[in-house]
Amino acid sequence: MTDTASPSSPVYGAVEAGGTKFVCAIGTGPDDVRALTRFPTTTPEETLARTVAFFQEQPERPVAVGVGSFGPVDPDPASPSYGFITRTPKPNWSGTDVAGVLRRALGVPVVFDTDVNAAGLGEHRWGAARGLDTFIYLTVGTGIGGGGLVGGQRLHGLVHPEMGHVFVPRAPGDDFAGHCPFHGTCLEGMASGPALQARWGRAGAELPPDHPAWEIEAHYLAYGLVNFIVTLSPQRIILGGGVMHQRQLFPMIRHRVRQILNGYVAHDALADGIDAYIVPPALGDRAGVLGALALAREAA
Amino acid sequence: MTDTASPSSPVYGAVEAGGTKFVCAIGTGPDDVRALTRFPTTTPEETLARTVAFFQEQPERPVAVGVGSFGPVDPDPASPSYGFITRTPKPNWSGTDVAGVLRRALGVPVVFDTDVNAAGLGEHRWGAARGLDTFIYLTVGTGIGGGGLVGGQRLHGLVHPEMGHVFVPRAPGDDFAGHCPFHGTCLEGMASGPALQARWGRAGAELPPDHPAWEIEAHYLAYGLVNFIVTLSPQRIILGGGVMHQRQLFPMIRHRVRQILNGYVAHDALADGIDAYIVPPALGDRAGVLGALALAREAA
Repeated sequence: MTDTASPSSPVYGAVEAGGTKFVCAIGTGPDDVRALTRFPTTTPEETLARTVAFFQEQPERPVAVGVGSFGPVDPDPASPSYGFITRTPKPNWSGTDVAGVLRRALGVPVVFDTDVNAAGLGEHRWGAARGLDTFIYLTVGTGIGGGGLVGGQRLHGLVHPEMGHVFVPRAPGDDFAGHCPFHGTCLEGMASGPALQARWGRAGAELPPDHPAWEIEAHYLAYGLVNFIVTLSPQRIILGGGVMHQRQLFPMIRHRVRQILNGYVAHDALADGIDAYIVPPALGDRAGVLGALALAREAA
Repeated sequence: MTDTASPSSPVYGAVEAGGTKFVCAIGTGPDDVRALTRFPTTTPEETLARTVAFFQEQPERPVAVGVGSFGPVDPDPASPSYGFITRTPKPNWSGTDVAGVLRRALGVPVVFDTDVNAAGLGEHRWGAARGLDTFIYLTVGTGIGGGGLVGGQRLHGLVHPEMGHVFVPRAPGDDFAGHCPFHGTCLEGMASGPALQARWGRAGAELPPDHPAWEIEAHYLAYGLVNFIVTLSPQRIILGGGVMHQRQLFPMIRHRVRQILNGYVAHDALADGIDAYIVPPALGDRAGVLGALALAREAA
Protein backbone atom coordinates (compact mmCIF):
# COMPACT_ATOMS: atom_id res chain seq x y z
CA MET A 1 0.00 0.00 0.00
CA THR A 2 1.23 3.47 -0.79
CA ASP A 3 -0.38 6.49 0.76
CA THR A 4 1.10 8.91 -1.75
CA ALA A 5 -1.62 9.52 -4.25
CA SER A 6 -1.44 10.48 -7.89
CA PRO A 7 -2.91 13.91 -8.70
CA SER A 8 -6.22 12.36 -9.77
CA SER A 9 -6.58 10.27 -6.58
CA PRO A 10 -8.87 11.45 -3.81
CA VAL A 11 -7.54 13.77 -1.13
CA TYR A 12 -8.86 14.01 2.40
CA GLY A 13 -9.44 16.77 4.89
CA ALA A 14 -8.36 16.67 8.53
CA VAL A 15 -9.36 18.79 11.52
CA GLU A 16 -7.66 18.44 14.88
CA ALA A 17 -10.15 20.37 16.97
CA GLY A 18 -8.33 21.20 20.18
CA GLY A 19 -9.49 23.31 23.08
CA THR A 20 -6.56 25.70 22.54
CA LYS A 21 -5.94 25.48 18.81
CA PHE A 22 -7.35 23.97 15.63
CA VAL A 23 -5.09 22.30 13.08
CA CYS A 24 -6.49 21.76 9.58
CA ALA A 25 -4.82 19.82 6.81
CA ILE A 26 -5.46 18.35 3.42
CA GLY A 27 -3.63 15.40 1.91
CA THR A 28 -3.51 11.64 1.88
CA GLY A 29 -1.02 10.65 4.58
CA PRO A 30 2.11 11.55 6.57
CA ASP A 31 4.25 11.90 3.44
CA ASP A 32 1.63 13.79 1.49
CA VAL A 33 0.29 16.68 3.56
CA ARG A 34 -0.47 19.25 0.84
CA ALA A 35 -1.52 22.13 3.08
CA LEU A 36 -1.73 22.68 6.82
CA THR A 37 -2.81 25.58 9.01
CA ARG A 38 -3.12 26.31 12.71
CA PHE A 39 -5.22 28.94 14.46
CA PRO A 40 -6.41 29.55 18.03
CA THR A 41 -9.73 28.16 19.22
CA THR A 42 -11.95 31.22 19.82
CA THR A 43 -15.75 31.19 19.48
CA PRO A 44 -17.36 28.23 17.72
CA GLU A 45 -18.65 30.52 14.92
CA GLU A 46 -15.30 32.12 14.17
CA THR A 47 -13.28 28.93 14.59
CA LEU A 48 -15.52 26.80 12.38
CA ALA A 49 -15.70 29.59 9.78
CA ARG A 50 -11.90 29.60 9.55
CA THR A 51 -11.98 25.81 9.24
CA VAL A 52 -14.47 25.97 6.37
CA ALA A 53 -12.49 28.77 4.69
CA PHE A 54 -9.29 26.72 4.82
CA PHE A 55 -10.88 23.88 2.86
CA GLN A 56 -12.66 26.22 0.43
CA GLU A 57 -9.36 27.92 -0.40
CA GLN A 58 -7.64 24.69 -1.39
CA PRO A 59 -7.18 23.89 -5.09
CA GLU A 60 -8.42 20.36 -4.39
CA ARG A 61 -11.70 19.42 -2.80
CA PRO A 62 -11.47 16.70 -0.11
CA VAL A 63 -13.74 13.70 -0.65
CA ALA A 64 -14.30 13.47 3.11
CA VAL A 65 -13.24 15.30 6.26
CA GLY A 66 -12.17 13.69 9.53
CA VAL A 67 -12.47 15.55 12.82
CA GLY A 68 -10.71 14.55 16.03
CA SER A 69 -12.21 16.78 18.68
CA PHE A 70 -11.79 17.87 22.26
CA GLY A 71 -14.80 16.87 24.30
CA PRO A 72 -16.91 15.54 25.70
CA VAL A 73 -18.43 14.71 22.32
CA ASP A 74 -21.14 12.52 20.85
CA PRO A 75 -19.24 9.98 18.71
CA ASP A 76 -22.24 7.74 17.92
CA PRO A 77 -23.12 7.95 14.20
CA ALA A 78 -26.63 6.70 15.00
CA SER A 79 -27.34 9.56 17.41
CA PRO A 80 -29.11 12.82 16.45
CA SER A 81 -26.30 14.74 18.13
CA TYR A 82 -23.49 12.83 16.37
CA GLY A 83 -20.56 15.14 15.84
CA PHE A 84 -21.55 17.60 18.57
CA ILE A 85 -19.34 18.78 21.36
CA THR A 86 -21.74 18.12 24.21
CA ARG A 87 -21.36 19.45 27.74
CA THR A 88 -17.90 20.98 27.92
CA PRO A 89 -16.62 23.36 30.59
CA LYS A 90 -15.11 25.39 27.72
CA PRO A 91 -17.21 28.58 27.42
CA ASN A 92 -19.58 28.80 24.40
CA TRP A 93 -18.74 25.38 23.01
CA SER A 94 -21.37 23.23 24.75
CA GLY A 95 -23.81 21.89 22.17
CA THR A 96 -21.74 22.90 19.12
CA ASP A 97 -22.56 20.83 16.02
CA VAL A 98 -19.01 20.65 14.68
CA ALA A 99 -19.55 17.84 12.17
CA GLY A 100 -22.87 19.28 10.94
CA VAL A 101 -21.46 22.75 10.25
CA LEU A 102 -18.58 21.29 8.25
CA ARG A 103 -20.75 18.80 6.38
CA ARG A 104 -23.28 21.44 5.34
CA ALA A 105 -20.65 24.00 4.34
CA LEU A 106 -18.38 21.59 2.47
CA GLY A 107 -20.90 19.13 1.12
CA VAL A 108 -18.80 16.06 1.93
CA PRO A 109 -19.05 13.27 4.51
CA VAL A 110 -17.57 14.14 7.91
CA VAL A 111 -16.26 11.40 10.21
CA PHE A 112 -16.06 12.54 13.80
CA ASP A 113 -14.50 11.12 16.95
CA THR A 114 -12.58 12.14 20.03
CA ASP A 115 -9.11 13.64 19.51
CA VAL A 116 -7.54 10.61 21.19
CA ASN A 117 -9.46 7.99 19.19
CA ALA A 118 -8.42 9.87 16.05
CA ALA A 119 -4.77 10.03 17.14
CA GLY A 120 -4.93 6.33 17.96
CA LEU A 121 -6.31 5.57 14.51
CA GLY A 122 -3.50 7.58 12.91
CA GLU A 123 -0.92 5.64 14.90
CA HIS A 124 -2.67 2.43 13.85
CA ARG A 125 -2.52 3.34 10.17
CA TRP A 126 0.92 4.91 9.99
CA GLY A 127 2.63 4.83 13.38
CA ALA A 128 3.35 2.93 16.56
CA ALA A 129 0.20 0.77 16.56
CA ARG A 130 0.47 -0.78 13.11
CA GLY A 131 -0.81 -4.36 13.11
CA LEU A 132 -2.36 -4.16 16.59
CA ASP A 133 -6.06 -4.45 17.26
CA THR A 134 -6.21 -3.47 20.93
CA PHE A 135 -4.14 -0.53 22.16
CA ILE A 136 -4.42 2.78 23.97
CA TYR A 137 -3.39 6.26 22.89
CA LEU A 138 -3.07 8.50 25.95
CA THR A 139 -2.32 12.20 25.78
CA VAL A 140 -0.84 13.95 28.81
CA GLY A 141 -0.98 17.69 28.42
CA THR A 142 -3.47 20.43 29.31
CA GLY A 143 -5.77 17.53 30.11
CA ILE A 144 -5.29 13.79 30.12
CA GLY A 145 -7.36 11.75 27.71
CA GLY A 146 -7.28 8.28 26.26
CA GLY A 147 -8.71 6.34 23.35
CA GLY A 148 -7.64 3.76 20.86
CA LEU A 149 -8.91 0.57 19.31
CA VAL A 150 -10.32 -2.51 21.01
CA GLY A 151 -10.76 -5.59 18.87
CA GLY A 152 -9.98 -3.40 15.85
CA GLN A 153 -12.75 -0.89 16.57
CA ARG A 154 -12.49 2.66 17.88
CA LEU A 155 -13.34 2.58 21.57
CA HIS A 156 -16.86 3.86 22.32
CA GLY A 157 -19.61 2.62 24.55
CA LEU A 158 -22.08 4.49 26.70
CA VAL A 159 -20.34 7.68 25.53
CA HIS A 160 -16.56 7.50 25.16
CA PRO A 161 -13.70 6.91 27.58
CA GLU A 162 -12.52 9.65 29.92
CA MET A 163 -9.30 7.92 30.90
CA GLY A 164 -7.79 11.03 32.46
CA HIS A 165 -10.34 10.75 35.23
CA VAL A 166 -9.20 7.37 36.48
CA PHE A 167 -8.40 7.26 40.20
CA VAL A 168 -5.08 5.98 41.51
CA PRO A 169 -3.41 5.68 44.94
CA ARG A 170 -1.55 8.68 46.25
CA ALA A 171 2.22 8.80 46.07
CA PRO A 172 3.72 8.22 49.53
CA GLY A 173 3.82 11.48 51.46
CA ASP A 174 2.07 13.45 48.72
CA ASP A 175 -0.60 15.79 50.04
CA PHE A 176 -1.32 17.82 46.89
CA ALA A 177 -5.04 18.63 46.84
CA GLY A 178 -5.41 17.85 43.14
CA HIS A 179 -6.37 20.11 40.28
CA CYS A 180 -9.44 18.52 38.65
CA PRO A 181 -12.52 20.71 39.19
CA PHE A 182 -14.72 17.60 39.17
CA HIS A 183 -12.64 15.03 41.04
CA GLY A 184 -9.70 16.76 42.72
CA THR A 185 -7.22 13.92 42.84
CA CYS A 186 -8.01 11.87 39.73
CA LEU A 187 -5.10 11.23 37.34
CA GLU A 188 -5.75 14.47 35.44
CA GLY A 189 -5.95 16.32 38.74
CA MET A 190 -2.57 14.95 39.83
CA ALA A 191 -0.54 14.65 36.63
CA SER A 192 -1.77 16.98 33.86
CA GLY A 193 0.29 19.98 32.76
CA PRO A 194 -1.83 22.41 34.85
CA ALA A 195 -1.50 20.06 37.85
CA LEU A 196 2.30 20.22 37.51
CA GLN A 197 2.07 24.01 37.31
CA ALA A 198 -0.19 24.20 40.37
CA ARG A 199 1.95 21.79 42.38
CA TRP A 200 5.37 23.29 41.64
CA GLY A 201 4.53 26.91 40.81
CA ARG A 202 6.01 26.68 37.33
CA ALA A 203 5.40 24.77 34.14
CA GLY A 204 6.74 21.26 33.69
CA ALA A 205 8.90 22.48 30.81
CA GLU A 206 10.76 24.71 33.28
CA LEU A 207 11.58 21.92 35.73
CA PRO A 208 14.96 20.21 35.26
CA PRO A 209 14.92 16.53 34.24
CA ASP A 210 16.22 15.44 37.67
CA HIS A 211 13.60 17.44 39.62
CA PRO A 212 11.62 15.33 42.15
CA ALA A 213 8.48 16.34 40.24
CA TRP A 214 9.16 13.64 37.68
CA GLU A 215 9.27 10.75 40.16
CA ILE A 216 5.86 11.82 41.42
CA GLU A 217 4.60 12.29 37.87
CA ALA A 218 5.85 8.81 36.96
CA HIS A 219 4.10 7.37 40.02
CA TYR A 220 0.69 8.69 38.95
CA LEU A 221 1.06 7.92 35.26
CA ALA A 222 2.34 4.40 36.00
CA TYR A 223 -0.64 3.63 38.27
CA GLY A 224 -2.96 5.01 35.61
CA LEU A 225 -1.37 2.77 32.99
CA VAL A 226 -1.55 -0.28 35.26
CA ASN A 227 -5.26 0.40 35.71
CA PHE A 228 -5.74 0.57 31.94
CA ILE A 229 -3.65 -2.60 31.47
CA VAL A 230 -5.73 -4.68 33.89
CA THR A 231 -9.00 -3.29 32.52
CA LEU A 232 -8.41 -3.46 28.75
CA SER A 233 -5.32 -5.64 28.27
CA PRO A 234 -3.91 -3.38 25.55
CA GLN A 235 -1.16 -4.74 23.29
CA ARG A 236 0.65 -1.39 23.51
CA ILE A 237 0.27 2.03 25.14
CA ILE A 238 1.24 5.16 23.23
CA LEU A 239 1.90 8.23 25.38
CA GLY A 240 1.65 11.61 23.65
CA GLY A 241 0.94 15.19 24.64
CA GLY A 242 3.09 18.05 25.87
CA VAL A 243 4.07 16.57 29.24
CA MET A 244 5.46 13.51 27.47
CA HIS A 245 8.00 15.73 25.71
CA GLN A 246 9.88 15.08 28.96
CA ARG A 247 11.46 11.96 27.55
CA GLN A 248 13.05 11.04 30.89
CA LEU A 249 9.53 10.04 31.99
CA PHE A 250 9.39 7.02 29.70
CA PRO A 251 11.98 4.84 31.47
CA MET A 252 10.67 5.96 34.86
CA ILE A 253 7.10 5.02 33.95
CA ARG A 254 8.14 1.67 32.45
CA HIS A 255 10.09 0.80 35.58
CA ARG A 256 7.21 1.70 37.87
CA VAL A 257 4.65 -0.21 35.77
CA ARG A 258 6.72 -3.40 36.04
CA GLN A 259 7.21 -2.81 39.75
CA ILE A 260 3.50 -2.25 40.40
CA LEU A 261 2.30 -5.22 38.29
CA ASN A 262 4.88 -7.35 40.11
CA GLY A 263 4.84 -10.08 37.48
CA TYR A 264 1.12 -10.72 37.80
CA VAL A 265 0.32 -10.41 34.10
CA ALA A 266 2.73 -12.96 32.66
CA HIS A 267 3.69 -11.60 29.26
CA ASP A 268 7.05 -10.56 27.91
CA ALA A 269 5.59 -7.22 26.76
CA LEU A 270 5.25 -6.32 30.43
CA ALA A 271 8.69 -7.63 31.36
CA ASP A 272 11.78 -7.45 29.14
CA GLY A 273 9.68 -6.16 26.25
CA ILE A 274 8.39 -3.10 28.08
CA ASP A 275 10.52 -0.62 26.09
CA ALA A 276 8.40 -1.51 23.06
CA TYR A 277 5.17 -1.57 25.08
CA ILE A 278 5.04 1.98 26.48
CA VAL A 279 6.15 4.24 23.64
CA PRO A 280 5.85 7.77 22.27
CA PRO A 281 3.71 8.35 19.17
CA ALA A 282 5.62 7.54 15.98
CA LEU A 283 3.79 10.46 14.35
CA GLY A 284 4.95 12.80 17.13
CA ASP A 285 2.94 15.98 17.47
CA ARG A 286 1.28 15.30 14.11
CA ALA A 287 -0.57 12.28 15.59
CA GLY A 288 -3.70 14.41 16.12
CA VAL A 289 -4.08 15.91 12.66
CA LEU A 290 -2.89 12.76 10.88
CA GLY A 291 -5.36 10.82 12.99
CA ALA A 292 -8.11 13.08 11.69
CA LEU A 293 -6.86 12.33 8.18
CA ALA A 294 -7.05 8.60 8.96
CA LEU A 295 -10.64 9.17 10.14
CA ALA A 296 -11.52 10.87 6.85
CA ARG A 297 -10.17 7.85 4.99
CA GLU A 298 -12.61 5.65 6.96
CA ALA A 299 -15.45 7.41 5.15
CA ALA A 300 -14.15 6.29 1.78
CA MET B 1 -35.71 -16.59 18.41
CA THR B 2 -36.45 -19.49 20.71
CA ASP B 3 -33.66 -21.26 22.53
CA THR B 4 -35.74 -24.33 23.37
CA ALA B 5 -34.77 -26.90 20.81
CA SER B 6 -36.75 -29.75 19.34
CA PRO B 7 -35.37 -33.24 20.14
CA SER B 8 -33.53 -33.38 16.83
CA SER B 9 -31.88 -29.95 17.27
CA PRO B 10 -28.29 -29.73 18.39
CA VAL B 11 -27.46 -29.62 22.08
CA TYR B 12 -24.43 -27.94 23.60
CA GLY B 13 -22.05 -28.69 26.42
CA ALA B 14 -20.99 -26.19 29.08
CA VAL B 15 -18.15 -26.24 31.59
CA GLU B 16 -17.81 -23.59 34.26
CA ALA B 17 -14.25 -24.33 35.32
CA GLY B 18 -13.84 -22.65 38.69
CA GLY B 19 -10.91 -22.76 41.06
CA THR B 20 -13.12 -24.33 43.74
CA LYS B 21 -15.69 -26.29 41.76
CA PHE B 22 -16.54 -27.32 38.22
CA VAL B 23 -20.10 -27.12 36.92
CA CYS B 24 -20.94 -29.09 33.77
CA ALA B 25 -24.20 -28.94 31.87
CA ILE B 26 -25.79 -29.97 28.63
CA GLY B 27 -28.71 -28.25 26.96
CA THR B 28 -29.57 -25.33 24.72
CA GLY B 29 -30.35 -22.42 27.07
CA PRO B 30 -31.66 -21.28 30.45
CA ASP B 31 -35.02 -22.99 29.97
CA ASP B 32 -33.54 -26.16 28.55
CA VAL B 33 -30.75 -27.42 30.81
CA ARG B 34 -31.06 -31.18 30.35
CA ALA B 35 -28.44 -32.26 32.84
CA LEU B 36 -26.13 -30.48 35.26
CA THR B 37 -23.51 -31.62 37.73
CA ARG B 38 -21.09 -30.01 40.17
CA PHE B 39 -17.91 -31.40 41.67
CA PRO B 40 -14.90 -29.99 43.49
CA THR B 41 -11.80 -28.88 41.60
CA THR B 42 -9.07 -31.33 42.60
CA THR B 43 -6.13 -32.30 40.35
CA PRO B 44 -6.36 -31.43 36.65
CA GLU B 45 -6.35 -35.13 35.69
CA GLU B 46 -9.19 -36.11 38.02
CA THR B 47 -11.25 -32.99 37.42
CA LEU B 48 -11.04 -33.14 33.64
CA ALA B 49 -11.73 -36.92 33.69
CA ARG B 50 -14.96 -36.25 35.61
CA THR B 51 -15.83 -33.55 33.09
CA VAL B 52 -15.30 -35.91 30.16
CA ALA B 53 -17.25 -38.67 31.91
CA PHE B 54 -20.22 -36.35 32.47
CA PHE B 55 -20.55 -35.68 28.75
CA GLN B 56 -19.93 -39.31 27.78
CA GLU B 57 -22.72 -40.44 30.09
CA GLN B 58 -25.31 -38.19 28.46
CA PRO B 59 -27.85 -39.71 26.07
CA GLU B 60 -27.16 -36.81 23.67
CA ARG B 61 -23.81 -35.82 22.28
CA PRO B 62 -23.09 -32.07 22.34
CA VAL B 63 -22.13 -30.56 18.99
CA ALA B 64 -19.70 -28.22 20.76
CA VAL B 65 -18.51 -27.52 24.30
CA GLY B 66 -17.94 -24.08 25.83
CA VAL B 67 -15.56 -23.59 28.73
CA GLY B 68 -15.48 -20.53 30.95
CA SER B 69 -12.37 -20.95 33.05
CA PHE B 70 -10.56 -19.55 36.04
CA GLY B 71 -7.20 -18.17 35.04
CA PRO B 72 -4.99 -16.74 33.90
CA VAL B 73 -5.73 -18.46 30.61
CA ASP B 74 -4.76 -18.21 26.97
CA PRO B 75 -7.97 -17.15 25.19
CA ASP B 76 -6.39 -16.52 21.76
CA PRO B 77 -7.63 -19.12 19.23
CA ALA B 78 -4.57 -18.39 17.05
CA SER B 79 -2.13 -19.28 19.82
CA PRO B 80 -0.54 -22.75 20.28
CA SER B 81 -1.55 -22.63 23.95
CA TYR B 82 -5.17 -21.63 23.26
CA GLY B 83 -7.39 -23.14 25.92
CA PHE B 84 -4.62 -23.58 28.48
CA ILE B 85 -4.68 -22.35 32.02
CA THR B 86 -1.31 -20.61 32.02
CA ARG B 87 0.56 -19.44 35.12
CA THR B 88 -1.89 -19.79 37.99
CA PRO B 89 -1.01 -19.76 41.69
CA LYS B 90 -3.39 -22.74 42.04
CA PRO B 91 -1.19 -25.81 42.67
CA ASN B 92 -0.83 -28.28 39.77
CA TRP B 93 -2.96 -26.30 37.32
CA SER B 94 -0.30 -24.15 35.62
CA GLY B 95 0.03 -25.19 31.98
CA THR B 96 -3.10 -27.36 31.91
CA ASP B 97 -4.51 -27.80 28.40
CA VAL B 98 -8.19 -27.75 29.40
CA ALA B 99 -9.64 -27.21 25.94
CA GLY B 100 -7.31 -29.75 24.29
CA VAL B 101 -8.13 -32.54 26.75
CA LEU B 102 -11.86 -32.04 26.23
CA ARG B 103 -11.58 -31.67 22.45
CA ARG B 104 -9.56 -34.87 22.09
CA ALA B 105 -11.73 -36.89 24.46
CA LEU B 106 -15.08 -35.70 23.12
CA GLY B 107 -14.23 -35.14 19.47
CA VAL B 108 -16.12 -31.85 19.22
CA PRO B 109 -15.10 -28.19 18.93
CA VAL B 110 -14.32 -26.51 22.25
CA VAL B 111 -14.71 -22.74 22.66
CA PHE B 112 -12.70 -21.43 25.56
CA ASP B 113 -12.56 -18.11 27.39
CA THR B 114 -12.27 -16.64 30.85
CA ASP B 115 -15.08 -17.39 33.31
CA VAL B 116 -16.09 -13.72 33.31
CA ASN B 117 -16.12 -13.29 29.53
CA ALA B 118 -18.28 -16.43 29.38
CA ALA B 119 -20.65 -15.15 32.06
CA GLY B 120 -20.84 -11.83 30.23
CA LEU B 121 -21.70 -13.61 27.01
CA GLY B 122 -24.46 -15.55 28.77
CA GLU B 123 -25.90 -12.32 30.16
CA HIS B 124 -25.68 -10.85 26.66
CA ARG B 125 -27.61 -13.72 25.12
CA TRP B 126 -30.20 -14.33 27.82
CA GLY B 127 -29.79 -11.88 30.68
CA ALA B 128 -29.04 -8.35 31.80
CA ALA B 129 -26.90 -7.33 28.81
CA ARG B 130 -29.29 -8.16 25.99
CA GLY B 131 -28.99 -5.67 23.14
CA LEU B 132 -25.81 -4.05 24.46
CA ASP B 133 -22.48 -4.18 22.70
CA THR B 134 -20.16 -2.76 25.37
CA PHE B 135 -20.60 -3.86 28.98
CA ILE B 136 -18.73 -5.37 31.90
CA TYR B 137 -19.44 -8.48 33.93
CA LEU B 138 -17.59 -8.30 37.24
CA THR B 139 -17.55 -11.10 39.77
CA VAL B 140 -16.77 -10.32 43.42
CA GLY B 141 -16.11 -13.50 45.38
CA THR B 142 -13.03 -15.55 46.22
CA GLY B 143 -11.32 -13.31 43.70
CA ILE B 144 -12.46 -10.33 41.70
CA GLY B 145 -12.49 -10.64 37.93
CA GLY B 146 -14.05 -8.81 35.03
CA GLY B 147 -14.83 -9.36 31.40
CA GLY B 148 -17.57 -8.66 28.94
CA LEU B 149 -18.02 -7.39 25.41
CA VAL B 150 -16.57 -4.28 23.80
CA GLY B 151 -17.99 -3.30 20.43
CA GLY B 152 -19.81 -6.65 20.39
CA GLN B 153 -16.65 -8.72 20.86
CA ARG B 154 -15.43 -10.61 23.92
CA LEU B 155 -12.76 -8.50 25.59
CA HIS B 156 -9.24 -9.75 24.90
CA GLY B 157 -6.02 -8.00 23.98
CA LEU B 158 -2.46 -8.65 25.06
CA VAL B 159 -3.87 -11.45 27.23
CA HIS B 160 -7.20 -10.80 28.93
CA PRO B 161 -8.35 -8.28 31.53
CA GLU B 162 -7.50 -8.75 35.18
CA MET B 163 -9.95 -6.16 36.46
CA GLY B 164 -9.72 -7.30 40.06
CA HIS B 165 -6.20 -5.94 40.17
CA VAL B 166 -7.16 -2.34 39.48
CA PHE B 167 -5.82 0.14 42.02
CA VAL B 168 -8.09 2.61 43.83
CA PRO B 169 -7.68 5.24 46.55
CA ARG B 170 -7.89 4.10 50.14
CA ALA B 171 -11.05 4.67 52.12
CA PRO B 172 -10.53 7.51 54.63
CA GLY B 173 -8.90 6.16 57.77
CA ASP B 174 -8.55 2.66 56.40
CA ASP B 175 -5.18 1.08 57.19
CA PHE B 176 -5.87 -2.52 56.14
CA ALA B 177 -2.68 -3.93 54.61
CA GLY B 178 -4.53 -5.62 51.76
CA HIS B 179 -4.82 -9.30 50.91
CA CYS B 180 -3.51 -9.67 47.35
CA PRO B 181 -0.25 -11.66 47.34
CA PHE B 182 0.91 -9.72 44.25
CA HIS B 183 -0.33 -6.20 44.94
CA GLY B 184 -1.47 -5.93 48.54
CA THR B 185 -4.00 -3.16 48.24
CA CYS B 186 -5.45 -3.60 44.73
CA LEU B 187 -9.24 -3.96 44.51
CA GLU B 188 -9.09 -7.74 45.01
CA GLY B 189 -6.77 -7.20 47.96
CA MET B 190 -9.22 -4.80 49.58
CA ALA B 191 -12.66 -6.10 48.61
CA SER B 192 -12.68 -9.82 47.73
CA GLY B 193 -14.34 -12.35 50.01
CA PRO B 194 -10.99 -13.40 51.54
CA ALA B 195 -10.13 -9.71 52.07
CA LEU B 196 -13.39 -9.27 54.02
CA GLN B 197 -12.54 -12.35 56.07
CA ALA B 198 -9.00 -11.13 56.76
CA ARG B 199 -10.16 -7.61 57.64
CA TRP B 200 -13.04 -8.51 59.95
CA GLY B 201 -12.09 -11.99 61.21
CA ARG B 202 -15.22 -13.57 59.81
CA ALA B 203 -16.81 -14.18 56.45
CA GLY B 204 -18.87 -11.47 54.79
CA ALA B 205 -21.94 -13.71 54.98
CA GLU B 206 -21.68 -13.55 58.78
CA LEU B 207 -21.59 -9.76 58.98
CA PRO B 208 -24.96 -8.03 59.48
CA PRO B 209 -26.23 -5.81 56.63
CA ASP B 210 -25.67 -2.66 58.70
CA HIS B 211 -22.07 -3.55 59.63
CA PRO B 212 -19.52 -0.81 58.80
CA ALA B 213 -17.76 -3.38 56.60
CA TRP B 214 -20.26 -2.70 53.83
CA GLU B 215 -19.58 1.03 53.60
CA ILE B 216 -15.89 0.28 53.15
CA GLU B 217 -16.69 -2.49 50.68
CA ALA B 218 -18.91 -0.09 48.71
CA HIS B 219 -16.12 2.51 48.69
CA TYR B 220 -13.64 0.15 47.05
CA LEU B 221 -16.08 -1.41 44.60
CA ALA B 222 -17.44 2.01 43.60
CA TYR B 223 -13.96 3.38 42.87
CA GLY B 224 -13.20 0.23 40.90
CA LEU B 225 -16.37 0.71 38.86
CA VAL B 226 -15.61 4.39 38.26
CA ASN B 227 -12.20 3.38 36.93
CA PHE B 228 -13.81 0.88 34.56
CA ILE B 229 -16.40 3.46 33.48
CA VAL B 230 -13.83 6.10 32.54
CA THR B 231 -11.63 3.53 30.81
CA LEU B 232 -14.17 1.51 28.80
CA SER B 233 -17.39 3.54 28.87
CA PRO B 234 -19.56 0.43 29.39
CA GLN B 235 -23.28 0.68 28.71
CA ARG B 236 -23.97 -1.40 31.84
CA ILE B 237 -22.08 -3.12 34.66
CA ILE B 238 -23.26 -6.49 35.95
CA LEU B 239 -22.02 -7.44 39.42
CA GLY B 240 -22.08 -11.13 40.29
CA GLY B 241 -20.25 -13.44 42.68
CA GLY B 242 -20.72 -14.46 46.27
CA VAL B 243 -20.03 -11.09 47.89
CA MET B 244 -22.75 -9.50 45.76
CA HIS B 245 -25.31 -11.76 47.42
CA GLN B 246 -25.21 -8.91 49.94
CA ARG B 247 -27.91 -7.04 48.08
CA GLN B 248 -27.59 -3.97 50.34
CA LEU B 249 -24.33 -3.27 48.50
CA PHE B 250 -26.08 -2.37 45.25
CA PRO B 251 -27.69 0.92 46.38
CA MET B 252 -24.57 1.83 48.33
CA ILE B 253 -22.32 1.27 45.32
CA ARG B 254 -24.66 3.16 42.98
CA HIS B 255 -24.76 6.12 45.35
CA ARG B 256 -20.98 6.22 45.69
CA VAL B 257 -20.40 5.89 41.92
CA ARG B 258 -22.61 8.94 41.29
CA GLN B 259 -20.89 10.83 44.07
CA ILE B 260 -17.39 10.03 42.80
CA LEU B 261 -18.15 10.80 39.13
CA ASN B 262 -19.70 14.07 40.29
CA GLY B 263 -21.65 14.58 37.09
CA TYR B 264 -18.58 14.50 34.88
CA VAL B 265 -19.85 11.87 32.46
CA ALA B 266 -23.12 13.47 31.37
CA HIS B 267 -25.45 10.55 30.71
CA ASP B 268 -28.72 9.63 32.35
CA ALA B 269 -27.46 6.06 32.89
CA LEU B 270 -25.01 7.51 35.41
CA ALA B 271 -27.61 9.78 37.02
CA ASP B 272 -31.28 8.92 37.47
CA GLY B 273 -30.86 5.76 35.43
CA ILE B 274 -28.20 4.25 37.65
CA ASP B 275 -30.48 1.57 39.13
CA ALA B 276 -30.58 0.01 35.67
CA TYR B 277 -26.85 0.61 35.09
CA ILE B 278 -25.28 -1.31 37.98
CA VAL B 279 -27.24 -4.53 38.26
CA PRO B 280 -27.03 -8.14 39.44
CA PRO B 281 -26.83 -10.89 36.79
CA ALA B 282 -30.27 -11.80 35.45
CA LEU B 283 -29.07 -15.40 35.27
CA GLY B 284 -28.03 -15.30 38.94
CA ASP B 285 -25.57 -17.96 39.98
CA ARG B 286 -26.17 -19.79 36.72
CA ALA B 287 -24.47 -16.97 34.77
CA GLY B 288 -21.20 -18.92 34.68
CA VAL B 289 -22.45 -22.24 33.37
CA LEU B 290 -25.00 -20.65 31.03
CA GLY B 291 -22.24 -18.39 29.78
CA ALA B 292 -20.22 -21.47 28.91
CA LEU B 293 -23.30 -22.74 27.05
CA ALA B 294 -23.47 -19.44 25.15
CA LEU B 295 -19.78 -19.90 24.26
CA ALA B 296 -20.49 -23.38 22.88
CA ARG B 297 -23.20 -21.88 20.70
CA GLU B 298 -20.59 -19.51 19.23
CA ALA B 299 -18.89 -22.55 17.68
CA ALA B 300 -22.01 -23.43 15.72
